[in-house]
Amino acid sequence: MSSFSNAQPDLSDAFSYIDQHRQQFLERLMAYLRLPSISAYGQGIEEVANYIAQVIKDIGLQAQVLPTEGWPIVLAELTTTPDAPTVLLYGHYDVQPPDPLDAWVSPPFEPTIRNDRLYARGAGDNKGQHFAQLLALETLLACRGKLPCNVKVLLEGEEEIGSPRLLSFVQRYHKELAADLLIVSDGPVYENGRAQIVFGARGILSFELRARGARQDLHSGNWGNIAPNPLWTLVHLLATMKNERGEITIDGFYDNVLPLSNLEREAIAKLPTDVERIKRTLEIQHLDQPLDRDVAERLIAWPTLTINGLHGGYAGPGTKSVLPHEAFAKCDIRLVPAQTADEIFAKVAAHVQRHAPEVMLLRQGSMEPAKTSLASPYTEALHKAVQAAQGEEPLLVPSAGGSLPNYVFTQTLGIPVFEVPYANVDEANHAPNENLEIERFFKGIKTGVAMLTYLSAFSKSL
Amino acid sequence: MSSFSNAQPDLSDAFSYIDQHRQQFLERLMAYLRLPSISAYGQGIEEVANYIAQVIKDIGLQAQVLPTEGWPIVLAELTTTPDAPTVLLYGHYDVQPPDPLDAWVSPPFEPTIRNDRLYARGAGDNKGQHFAQLLALETLLACRGKLPCNVKVLLEGEEEIGSPRLLSFVQRYHKELAADLLIVSDGPVYENGRAQIVFGARGILSFELRARGARQDLHSGNWGNIAPNPLWTLVHLLATMKNERGEITIDGFYDNVLPLSNLEREAIAKLPTDVERIKRTLEIQHLDQPLDRDVAERLIAWPTLTINGLHGGYAGPGTKSVLPHEAFAKCDIRLVPAQTADEIFAKVAAHVQRHAPEVMLLRQGSMEPAKTSLASPYTEALHKAVQAAQGEEPLLVPSAGGSLPNYVFTQTLGIPVFEVPYANVDEANHAPNENLEIERFFKGIKTGVAMLTYLSAFSKSL
Repeated sequence: MSSFSNAQPDLSDAFSYIDQHRQQFLERLMAYLRLPSISAYGQGIEEVANYIAQVIKDIGLQAQVLPTEGWPIVLAELTTTPDAPTVLLYGHYDVQPPDPLDAWVSPPFEPTIRNDRLYARGAGDNKGQHFAQLLALETLLACRGKLPCNVKVLLEGEEEIGSPRLLSFVQRYHKELAADLLIVSDGPVYENGRAQIVFGARGILSFELRARGARQDLHSGNWGNIAPNPLWTLVHLLATMKNERGEITIDGFYDNVLPLSNLEREAIAKLPTDVERIKRTLEIQHLDQPLDRDVAERLIAWPTLTINGLHGGYAGPGTKSVLPHEAFAKCDIRLVPAQTADEIFAKVAAHVQRHAPEVMLLRQGSMEPAKTSLASPYTEALHKAVQAAQGEEPLLVPSAGGSLPNYVFTQTLGIPVFEVPYANVDEANHAPNENLEIERFFKGIKTGVAMLTYLSAFSKSL
Repeated sequence: MSSFSNAQPDLSDAFSYIDQHRQQFLERLMAYLRLPSISAYGQGIEEVANYIAQVIKDIGLQAQVLPTEGWPIVLAELTTTPDAPTVLLYGHYDVQPPDPLDAWVSPPFEPTIRNDRLYARGAGDNKGQHFAQLLALETLLACRGKLPCNVKVLLEGEEEIGSPRLLSFVQRYHKELAADLLIVSDGPVYENGRAQIVFGARGILSFELRARGARQDLHSGNWGNIAPNPLWTLVHLLATMKNERGEITIDGFYDNVLPLSNLEREAIAKLPTDVERIKRTLEIQHLDQPLDRDVAERLIAWPTLTINGLHGGYAGPGTKSVLPHEAFAKCDIRLVPAQTADEIFAKVAAHVQRHAPEVMLLRQGSMEPAKTSLASPYTEALHKAVQAAQGEEPLLVPSAGGSLPNYVFTQTLGIPVFEVPYANVDEANHAPNENLEIERFFKGIKTGVAMLTYLSAFSKSL
């Protein structure tokens, strides 16, 4: 692969086209967001897979909805530029459950515009972002009659439940998916609002702890401290898994955490972090423990153990002097290279077995961590494309804090994976009032146009 | 007060009357149980206070519904036997909330008979038991035309939320309430099913811990270990309040726990405890920590710290990789003499302030512990009465594990308080499928008849 051409391609035709179609593009996104597609409940999945496949066909790509053992995957391509690189675009058409519903200002599946933002479940994560990628293809085809690169599109419907079938799908269709690089637009821009290119993603391992006491709830005065309390069991077990200083105290948990490369350390050092603004935005008094750890380094270099939910016993108003008979804790661990989900689950299981063998441990979804080298030959093209489309230099971030199934593509297809997100930092993904700044949606379409155009420069020197 | 007469009063007329009216008595109890009176929600309170006052008037007592700053108190009396002792009967017409509703086999306010038990919220706690006391009065009036003792009745509507106005009410009406002793029928018989007379009750202090993280739920990958997790905050705080060995580790918590008297130690030593049966009944593998502590001593001599409910974050199916922004824990502490609710709350507050000052601590209801001396002159009369009515010697238990506002009467009226419960041990009070063995209901009515009759012997020697 030769060096990247320094010529500045002219994008003004496509950018004008996008500006002229703002209202239409926005309405089409709102129509897409009106359709629930909650993978955790299986709600609306088939309908939305077919819907977005039809959208892609209408744009001019070949598209099909392929079954898996779980929810279907939408696969599309338009590979009519033999000399150009092949870019695989990846996204997911499924969304997180919208509860708690009563915390939404407007209903999650009735897209509503307030303060120049579009509020809806999936606005940022991920419908709004891959829809922008698709509209970039539409724009290029409308303005130029063809795409500057070969393009393949993979939209899955199980990302929010851990992409359990993506790996086997990509293994099965690895020939059809052959590409030079993958671009995914998911997650938010950098914490300070700057554009970013992200070179990796942490993995995730979800699990649930279930504790039982007596066969039913009991009177706390007659039976308290006689029958074991499953809430105390979980409190004491969890307290042995992470201490008050923020250290995860599961035996061997940090064994396979790789040190950062020098390039990564340099990139992290360049990342601006405004801790005071984070505290203001989140309305928190202090960061989580350990207090002295750099924010960017937390997200890039360190695994986490989060309790996503813990429930047992009385939840109503007033008091109820009850001894609950069951309780559960849902947790996720964010993994960093070279931790693996299997390895960490085995360590969690051994820990639970040693500290509270009566507690049931259920393994749920997982994704491996993955990283692309900052030294990739495509880095410069993408960097310039984002700058051309968004008017600012993107930050180069070694890894996202969140999890994407990048490892499926890096491992199976052997290609570099670049995350180029468009969503605002306060997109509230996975939370009530998810939203996308409308301006970022249009910038996203322009970024899609620019990336494919800049990447086409590689064809000249092949 | 002289010694108690050894003569065996003839109770056969009253007992026959009760046997002849079983069906009618049962139907009247079911009518009472059909009326919800949930003090925590204020549901049905006024209606039920008026309803039971009318029942008492129909029996032949003077009765009135007196307002308090909270829910009203029903006060009644029939004091036509000047030379006899005055017995104050105490009970509560309010019930615990019935949730979780879906755990009930039959709806909580549709009394249903299965396997010789009556299933309904309040069947045992406390409607079924004070209704038996009232039917004892009705029986005595029907059979003898008058009561053997002077009787006063106090039924409150806030016992299940900690009797917050009972103390000031009894202080205000202390002349009207003047009596020689108080009998309350609440809670279950002894754990092995034997009748018992209980000489005290543990106190209770309820409180809630509320923790907040960011201003809203966040994505655990983007913000985990940056914003504090209120569930981790509560887990770590709670783990500092009680350790895995069952020791409550709040500073000074045990300072005012009085040692047992010799009489109490002897009484405890006589209490039969079948740990294996408890484990079978509750379907537990082992008792709560500390494993080596005697069961009766746990309930009588030791305070507890129970988490009644702990909730935060995702509770739905599957997984949700969310960082919750708020969580709460509802707790109760059972107090033993000479702990006081104020003292212990101050110690909890100091502990929270030291370990997690950002956590909000809310004080909820409380009751002080209280004990009556086993050496009371009424002990023998009550002992013989229970034996005559139930066909077995009652066990003498220094204190109940549960909480009753006995302290209000021991402190304000200066009278001994005896708890003579009728409910089966597996009454499931405060839990789904609360029930009362029907036979115990009738035994309760007979016990009421016998107690008043045996206590009247004190009049002869006044």
